[in-house]
Amino acid sequence: MQQIVAFDAGGTSTRAVIVDRTGACLGYGTAGGGNPVSSGIPAVRTALRTALQRAAQQHGAGATNYSSAVIAMAGSSAQTPAETFTAGLSDLGLRGDLVIESDLLAIFSSGTYHDRGYALVAGTGAIAARISSGRLDAVADGMGWLLGDAGSGFWIGHQVVRAVSAALDGRGPQTSLCAALLAALGIDPGPSAIFQGRAAAAHQLIDAVYALVPVELSRFAPLAFDAVADSADAVAQDILARAASALSATLAAVAASAVTGPLVFGGSILGRDSALGTAVEAAAGGNAIRVADGVAGAAVLALRHAAGVVDAAMFARIHETLAGLRNA
Amino acid sequence: MQQIVAFDAGGTSTRAVIVDRTGACLGYGTAGGGNPVSSGIPAVRTALRTALQRAAQQHGAGATNYSSAVIAMAGSSAQTPAETFTAGLSDLGLRGDLVIESDLLAIFSSGTYHDRGYALVAGTGAIAARISSGRLDAVADGMGWLLGDAGSGFWIGHQVVRAVSAALDGRGPQTSLCAALLAALGIDPGPSAIFQGRAAAAHQLIDAVYALVPVELSRFAPLAFDAVADSADAVAQDILARAASALSATLAAVAASAVTGPLVFGGSILGRDSALGTAVEAAAGGNAIRVADGVAGAAVLALRHAAGVVDAAMFARIHETLAGLRNA
Repeated sequence: MQQIVAFDAGGTSTRAVIVDRTGACLGYGTAGGGNPVSSGIPAVRTALRTALQRAAQQHGAGATNYSSAVIAMAGSSAQTPAETFTAGLSDLGLRGDLVIESDLLAIFSSGTYHDRGYALVAGTGAIAARISSGRLDAVADGMGWLLGDAGSGFWIGHQVVRAVSAALDGRGPQTSLCAALLAALGIDPGPSAIFQGRAAAAHQLIDAVYALVPVELSRFAPLAFDAVADSADAVAQDILARAASALSATLAAVAASAVTGPLVFGGSILGRDSALGTAVEAAAGGNAIRVADGVAGAAVLALRHAAGVVDAAMFARIHETLAGLRNA
Repeated sequence: MQQIVAFDAGGTSTRAVIVDRTGACLGYGTAGGGNPVSSGIPAVRTALRTALQRAAQQHGAGATNYSSAVIAMAGSSAQTPAETFTAGLSDLGLRGDLVIESDLLAIFSSGTYHDRGYALVAGTGAIAARISSGRLDAVADGMGWLLGDAGSGFWIGHQVVRAVSAALDGRGPQTSLCAALLAALGIDPGPSAIFQGRAAAAHQLIDAVYALVPVELSRFAPLAFDAVADSADAVAQDILARAASALSATLAAVAASAVTGPLVFGGSILGRDSALGTAVEAAAGGNAIRVADGVAGAAVLALRHAAGVVDAAMFARIHETLAGLRNA
């Protein structure tokens, strides 16, 4: 039976799955980052090859031909010609078409085989999409850390460091986030000499934070979730409430009465159960399907390209067989 | 009579004034940026030399000796040994001590000869200080664009581009800031093709803003003031009201009942009359003295080092004679 390859190429890792036309996943492999903007084209080529080699190794069927492939990639890569990535894959057996699809569409399709509905993804960034006839109909936010990404992991982490800065010099309320952030950065929070009217811990916080690339602030987002869970910290609660409100506004901006369908949540901030996710669901007036990544959806998109249609049985088969391979 | 030199070394320009022990300013000159962090030490040396040469030229007294000098510089430079800058100045006639002072103290001292009180400076950044016995007693904010500078020119400009981003994709209310910002960036705001669910103007806005260094966003702060003045734009009004509130919180953080004294406003956002400045004054419960820069204050500090005390008559003389030199 014809075999097809689906790739989910993300900023921190790339996933490949080999699937047959019934939706049965046969082999799964991962490799390094696959975002052309952050990793560069040569690294993406290597990541795609490595992930496919590992998937083929798991499958263990020896030399194989693949009749087509889909790469799900960050939206801005959709203008990249597919040929950019074909060469490194054809000697691994890719014979037919290679199509680049939006990673947002792949995340939506990880949650449903329907071709219309909504996706809201909050990881380091944040973006919402309305999907209609299997295509992106409208998006909101996804404008990056400086212009947007309201309610994202970066946004929450940024609010954490700003709240701590304000608490340290008395502009803002005291919060347990201070001790947590200073500990995460290895800074002694104790009473210390004042230099130029400012405590030593504040000087060290400034030095530590400006040594980071801004988007790295997303690593402090978990401190807000922990502070709410551990001590119901009011400052952290306010940050997460404002994040939920911003994400709800982003989702509301793509809503259209003509498009009904499932709502899919993805990304590290929304992909798991949390009070924040529940608040956004409540504002949207419905339950969301939570997905970990876009690899199952990339398989859906690849099958739709190859076989025309993906039904409920095929969708269930993709998830069941993929879970087996991932747990192997 | 002994002559003294005072320098006000700022990020975009350096000012030098030659002053005698009565407070009479004899020559004034300017040169390029004098912040060691942003410009580098060699450029600061050149700027100091050039500014003093121009001041001496205006004075026109031929070869002169200066008995001492003060350089007012960004706070983080106070650990720089004064000897770093002495060499390039001694062959211009500097004979005595060279002392580095905080630029914040210089701005305060441009507004008053008293040795206690408060300063609030909002230019690209924002910082408040409590001054006691002529020294910085406490500071709040001044933590830079990523951690703080709440209510500063950067902060206002950042809020402008975020509000426009939200308005463009329907997450936020419409605002006249859209047309103003797109025009400032040379982007056609007209109806245009949608690409990946997003209007062309939004794609161009993303490209244009991420091509800037973040602090450059401060150049969009005037758009908020214009939108309030020209059309009472509600989004711009909200941004400036939040800026006033943040600056008031920063000033309140350094307030101490034991320290009373004048309040001095400096920096491009607060140094001029504006509704924002009036709101911050009202919150502080008193009138502020607005100053354009720290050069008169650097002269005050230089005289205090050389002569021990600066009284009301000397302070008035500094301002009167300096104004004459600047208008010459």
